[in-house]
Amino acid sequence: MPIPNFAKGTASAGGSLLPAIAQDATSGRVLMFAWMNEEAFRESLKTGYAVYFSRSRGKLWRKGETSGHQQKVIEIRVDCDADAILLRIEQTGAACHEGFESCFFRQVAKDGSSRIADERLVDPATVYDK
Amino acid sequence: MPIPNFAKGTASAGGSLLPAIAQDATSGRVLMFAWMNEEAFRESLKTGYAVYFSRSRGKLWRKGETSGHQQKVIEIRVDCDADAILLRIEQTGAACHEGFESCFFRQVAKDGSSRIADERLVDPATVYDK
Repeated sequence: MPIPNFAKGTASAGGSLLPAIAQDATSGRVLMFAWMNEEAFRESLKTGYAVYFSRSRGKLWRKGETSGHQQKVIEIRVDCDADAILLRIEQTGAACHEGFESCFFRQVAKDGSSRIADERLVDPATVYDK
Repeated sequence: MPIPNFAKGTASAGGSLLPAIAQDATSGRVLMFAWMNEEAFRESLKTGYAVYFSRSRGKLWRKGETSGHQQKVIEIRVDCDADAILLRIEQTGAACHEGFESCFFRQVAKDGSSRIADERLVDPATVYDK
């Protein structure tokens, strides 16, 4: 069995995609969820910086290419079924394109309502509208 | 926009599925990756214990139903795009059906080779073959 096993991924324009979780290597905070095809995985391994596959843009997404908010890969782990990837990373700036440290800034209450539970780190306008 | 937004999920026998990450609420360790349909999400919210949708079995998966290794939900977070779910949980026993604390027990090296980097917590035979 190849590890990770991209044959088990979800079919997409970019080929077979596996789920990828980015976690801050120091704080342990889960920063974002994204997808990888085999090319993205290999490039992440080779360059030491996280590369994903953007389903909306239909191409490789070199995280931080526009924003400068790169993710240095500290460790890569793969789960028991070899079909999910965990990246332990060092994040520059904010992981979230909305300017939050983590994309998981929304908390869901027992009644199903949600609220923003974190502070914004940076103003997205200063990052993307240069 | 409903949060999470199941309309953005991946089509499956169980309806639209969104990715769900289970993280140990105390240690911050990422324990497993699974899928939820809307029914699984609502049941998790209502009961306070993690319920997923098993793609292989094609039905709701009440985590720990067989093994006793339940996941008490401490907090639910949803990402910026409302299409990925993070559960901060209290794990009883081992999250992984192979007996490891975390399903992410395999480390991938720079050259693409992988190795088991954790110790087994429990013998799966004692959990599932009762």
